[in-house]
Amino acid sequence: MSFNTYGHLFRVTTWGESHGPALGATVDGCPPGIALTEADIQPWLDRRKPGQNRFTTQRREDDAVEILSGVYEGRTTGTPIQLLIRNTDQRSKDYGAIAQTFRPGHADITYWQKYGIRDPRGGGRSSARETAARVAAGGVARQVLAALLPGLAVRGYMVQMGPRAIDRARFDAAAIDQNPFWCPDAETADLWAADLDALRKSGNSVGAMIEVVAQGLPAGLGAPVYAKLDSELAAAMMSINAVKGVEIGAGMGAAALTGVENADEIRMGPGGQPVYASNHAGGILGGISTGQDVVVRFAVKPTSSILTPRRSVTLDGQEAEVVTKGRHDPCVGIRAVPVGEAMMACVLLDQFLLHRAQVGEGPRGAIG
Amino acid sequence: MSFNTYGHLFRVTTWGESHGPALGATVDGCPPGIALTEADIQPWLDRRKPGQNRFTTQRREDDAVEILSGVYEGRTTGTPIQLLIRNTDQRSKDYGAIAQTFRPGHADITYWQKYGIRDPRGGGRSSARETAARVAAGGVARQVLAALLPGLAVRGYMVQMGPRAIDRARFDAAAIDQNPFWCPDAETADLWAADLDALRKSGNSVGAMIEVVAQGLPAGLGAPVYAKLDSELAAAMMSINAVKGVEIGAGMGAAALTGVENADEIRMGPGGQPVYASNHAGGILGGISTGQDVVVRFAVKPTSSILTPRRSVTLDGQEAEVVTKGRHDPCVGIRAVPVGEAMMACVLLDQFLLHRAQVGEGPRGAIG
Amino acid sequence: MSFNTYGHLFRVTTWGESHGPALGATVDGCPPGIALTEADIQPWLDRRKPGQNRFTTQRREDDAVEILSGVYEGRTTGTPIQLLIRNTDQRSKDYGAIAQTFRPGHADITYWQKYGIRDPRGGGRSSARETAARVAAGGVARQVLAALLPGLAVRGYMVQMGPRAIDRARFDAAAIDQNPFWCPDAETADLWAADLDALRKSGNSVGAMIEVVAQGLPAGLGAPVYAKLDSELAAAMMSINAVKGVEIGAGMGAAALTGVENADEIRMGPGGQPVYASNHAGGILGGISTGQDVVVRFAVKPTSSILTPRRSVTLDGQEAEVVTKGRHDPCVGIRAVPVGEAMMACVLLDQFLLHRAQVGEGPRGAIG
Amino acid sequence: MSFNTYGHLFRVTTWGESHGPALGATVDGCPPGIALTEADIQPWLDRRKPGQNRFTTQRREDDAVEILSGVYEGRTTGTPIQLLIRNTDQRSKDYGAIAQTFRPGHADITYWQKYGIRDPRGGGRSSARETAARVAAGGVARQVLAALLPGLAVRGYMVQMGPRAIDRARFDAAAIDQNPFWCPDAETADLWAADLDALRKSGNSVGAMIEVVAQGLPAGLGAPVYAKLDSELAAAMMSINAVKGVEIGAGMGAAALTGVENADEIRMGPGGQPVYASNHAGGILGGISTGQDVVVRFAVKPTSSILTPRRSVTLDGQEAEVVTKGRHDPCVGIRAVPVGEAMMACVLLDQFLLHRAQVGEGPRGAIG
Repeated sequence: MSFNTYGHLFRVTTWGESHGPALGATVDGCPPGIALTEADIQPWLDRRKPGQNRFTTQRREDDAVEILSGVYEGRTTGTPIQLLIRNTDQRSKDYGAIAQTFRPGHADITYWQKYGIRDPRGGGRSSARETAARVAAGGVARQVLAALLPGLAVRGYMVQMGPRAIDRARFDAAAIDQNPFWCPDAETADLWAADLDALRKSGNSVGAMIEVVAQGLPAGLGAPVYAKLDSELAAAMMSINAVKGVEIGAGMGAAALTGVENADEIRMGPGGQPVYASNHAGGILGGISTGQDVVVRFAVKPTSSILTPRRSVTLDGQEAEVVTKGRHDPCVGIRAVPVGEAMMACVLLDQFLLHRAQVGEGPRGAIG
Repeated sequence: MSFNTYGHLFRVTTWGESHGPALGATVDGCPPGIALTEADIQPWLDRRKPGQNRFTTQRREDDAVEILSGVYEGRTTGTPIQLLIRNTDQRSKDYGAIAQTFRPGHADITYWQKYGIRDPRGGGRSSARETAARVAAGGVARQVLAALLPGLAVRGYMVQMGPRAIDRARFDAAAIDQNPFWCPDAETADLWAADLDALRKSGNSVGAMIEVVAQGLPAGLGAPVYAKLDSELAAAMMSINAVKGVEIGAGMGAAALTGVENADEIRMGPGGQPVYASNHAGGILGGISTGQDVVVRFAVKPTSSILTPRRSVTLDGQEAEVVTKGRHDPCVGIRAVPVGEAMMACVLLDQFLLHRAQVGEGPRGAIG
Repeated sequence: MSFNTYGHLFRVTTWGESHGPALGATVDGCPPGIALTEADIQPWLDRRKPGQNRFTTQRREDDAVEILSGVYEGRTTGTPIQLLIRNTDQRSKDYGAIAQTFRPGHADITYWQKYGIRDPRGGGRSSARETAARVAAGGVARQVLAALLPGLAVRGYMVQMGPRAIDRARFDAAAIDQNPFWCPDAETADLWAADLDALRKSGNSVGAMIEVVAQGLPAGLGAPVYAKLDSELAAAMMSINAVKGVEIGAGMGAAALTGVENADEIRMGPGGQPVYASNHAGGILGGISTGQDVVVRFAVKPTSSILTPRRSVTLDGQEAEVVTKGRHDPCVGIRAVPVGEAMMACVLLDQFLLHRAQVGEGPRGAIG
Repeated sequence: MSFNTYGHLFRVTTWGESHGPALGATVDGCPPGIALTEADIQPWLDRRKPGQNRFTTQRREDDAVEILSGVYEGRTTGTPIQLLIRNTDQRSKDYGAIAQTFRPGHADITYWQKYGIRDPRGGGRSSARETAARVAAGGVARQVLAALLPGLAVRGYMVQMGPRAIDRARFDAAAIDQNPFWCPDAETADLWAADLDALRKSGNSVGAMIEVVAQGLPAGLGAPVYAKLDSELAAAMMSINAVKGVEIGAGMGAAALTGVENADEIRMGPGGQPVYASNHAGGILGGISTGQDVVVRFAVKPTSSILTPRRSVTLDGQEAEVVTKGRHDPCVGIRAVPVGEAMMACVLLDQFLLHRAQVGEGPRGAIG
């Protein structure tokens, strides 16, 4: 992991700014012979696309992906895949004011302090628009995973918006695609709609918590000590814009548990495989997958670009009040759902390749 | 970050098993000319050392570090520093039973499933003993940071054990070294002592939450998108044994905030530097340090090696009950405090070097 | 260095195939605030451009570079720079025959054996066309070097074509740009022209040797043991298509020298700096620059795509004769000159950044 | 590749100085379940060991390797392997004089100029003694390769010493182990003995050329563009102390060939596999192995530590004459033979793992 590249073997380098001509991802290390066309990637981008309902930014982008390299006659060749997404609806004039003032809670000020130069148009590189490139790369990863690990399913959804969390008793996977919040609890989705309408009207924004689950991952993926599966997932999720916390399984709540409670007891399942009575581990022990569901949650802070005035300073050191007009997501966490899924897919594929490198394709330690 | 190496430029590779002859860290990329002797590193190791009170494992290890390379006449030469720590109190017979049975909640089973071979003596590579090497490397990082960033201070402490959290109103930095829990709240420390005595006697263990703070870090360290300062810290902390969650600043709680609440408002300070009215950001915006305190918290799950019987399976697929005798920490979170500090020090030094590489040593974007 | 990326901190990932819609380079880790426009890069691309005279392929490509990201108002921002070059003169029908047959001496067969799929149009990824992306990235590196190391000059030229080498006694730097061979010896250039006309007419091709020199590099760049300056240069040059050997200073000839001959004796120069009586070292000792000229030579094999029939096999295992029509360089070494310069520039910048990271910007060991 | 680490997946970090307490290699990424004991590694170290005959340094070192981690009950566990070699015959007083004066042709001066500090005892980190650690790591690689690619054989030998090259017509693999030069031509070995006796007596030293060949490597290993097999081999060999040039197959001589000569024509062999009429490619096309012998040659410059006075300067800027007494190899190329073999083994294993990661274990593109 370095600067703008993620992954060890399946390596994704994203590039591009919010208001430049285009952005994209350079995907290196992709296995060859995998069926891949733009049509395989586009549906994932469409899920993240802005302007789909009143709860996301009204910027209108097609987010149409073009594959410029690495694919021949509909199959990956093993060489780098360049994914290009043109920016079409930049309105830089919206951002004239913020070029001179730093939005509180935004990367405006730190980019300036680091580099002494920044592209202020739409947040430049720090815009959530960068995540379109991640989703495109995640689309490639999903296509490879479908071939290499056909039983794997990666699914994300929102479990909390502001102080209101879903009721796990009403969890219904089928509901996720039925509301604008990727919420598995239809009743809560309705409440969130009312909450968010009120917040938006008051010129405010709100945080959210996302859960991403991978089902069907074999046991044994990951690595000890520093490229642990959980460590890699934590880095991947924390690298998404506005994320402030990441947890696996019992997560931060593990601090409150006793060893007796936390032990996921093991029995032999009907198929001669170990089965677990619970999943506090979130599918990972010692940095290596157990074969249970891999469960990751991350918290997304509220959008910092809001209509409510906040106190700040200007480039020339004057104190000022900032009101960000432009077009912004009142809850950027909503669109973080497909992004979290994409990062999960990229990490799992990278770990699969790392495992195959060191250990090979055969099964290793059998039990029984 | 890869397998057993952490860092891009200040690179630490730890090696060694719990019951092998020795363990250690290979530290590459250290700046030259830094004063360094074993005496600079040993105090940090002594803080992590087992057997110091009734709340940590009774294994007796001197954890004496030897510098085998990279230092000449008391100064670093810029070449790799090999840090060696001999294991002296291995009692492998304690572990005979668990060689055939997998402890629930422990990496026993996943190492086996991944590699088809594991060193069962004391948990082998997955033992918390590996963290001694991290602390040694952290000692080197601290020595370099003292030379390059003399205003920087890194401090960790426990803020929760089991369900009981400290009272922030009683926070007293001076208390941290005055109790066996690195607890900044003396009253809570007393309660934890009683809690832990009870848990230990009942053959149980408990989780904990650790906070690590870096004060005095300049603005501008970190990098956009994938090697973000927060992303690197998340990976580093999550790579510590038994950690299940990591958060920065407001952390998981950011999900519940509104944009108005979350905005850390900015004013010009008396020295012509921006000052912040709050620190929900935990000192990091857009992956880059703001100059505020960098605040990281992580949750450590309870030790999985407990005296209370738990159901599990054996290597040959039989169902069994596991009781782990041996000598184990009832709250492994306690000794995770110096480990978290070490990881923070290593990450900050690595980020300092990355920044110096790309941007140079001079100041960049001034405000005012 | 990995798959399609070169460099540790100044990282260049090239992508694209000979006959795809475009190719390019993703440049990450570039220092911020460097003046950069397409006009700074284009002249280097123009030097490598095909079809400029009868000695290079007649394919007509503008090789016009577009900067898609990482630059704001004419200055680098420190974020990834995407360099795009559209392919405009693909004639894939030229290559229909070779899709089924492997050219001897060409990567056709190994790509197939590795991946089980290859893009046969124009050699796909293995085409020398990939080097356009390197030259573009080298243009960025040169721009940064001009700012950070203003005394540095990088220059390449051909010193041998086929069995005929230049006469060093006639070496004239001014001649290099005056002939189609980048030859510093005008008389030899004329002889090469005649040689190559004859070879081309006979349906043959020929190898060449290139020398690239960096003048004005400060002492102290490089690193011991594995990221040595010479090791990095060797990797960089050997990674160029068709290169079969790389040497530094005395090079392969060092095998024939005695220690007395090889010692570059040192004296104190008028400015209080060490000066060397000779440069068998090629400006590098122990992997670190001495301050002398860095001198690298590499051999480019003859183009494998020739009109003379050669025996080979087909995809379905039949023996066949191959005659490659298409449009090919009779001496691909000619266009390797700007490519070698580009690689030198990228390596030196990367090493400069690595040095600045570890050691800082100040001078280190003074002599006297 | 970075600073002191070599390899992408099979990663070797060497550490240690000539006159410190020990040196060694940290080997990460090794496949699990491979039989490995010290006895598997020691024979390779014994081949490199100094003091075995009058043609190598008279320093007496056992070079006994200890495995400190990563092996359990005689098998690799997949965790880092620490290889330790103690230094036992340091005589630092031999080097007192050179602490103040820079040997011409030696890294003394560049280490000083880079770091402002250096360990002058025996050359410190720049000593050829570092290569003992490479050979130990190569012993691990060979053990893994024996399990994963049982048909593979790696062999090195000297083909030139000073101006005198072997006669290829007398090439006899069985002779290599029968003389102190690893020379496959017994007659030339006798002449070299006389040559070297004379040089040594006159206080001089001499260069050499080494060839390392890998037989039995499958087609398809390597990668396009920057982690090409030839590029990786060039970096690996050039990283060995005193190496000034590396070539593959026809090597630097490829510059003199025509395309007709250079084409290694292909026929179908009796087993339905392609066979080649020649091997100008040195077993590598487009950075990927062809299945032919991989042939690498590298030139080693003469030892710079000689008894003949050479002019140089001192640390405080005085001009001086240098005579290096100590114990030095008159032809360091001799002991570079096992080092070159070790680097070849490490590179091939790393490439095997990279290939297995991306492409899997099955065969890919069949011919016929």
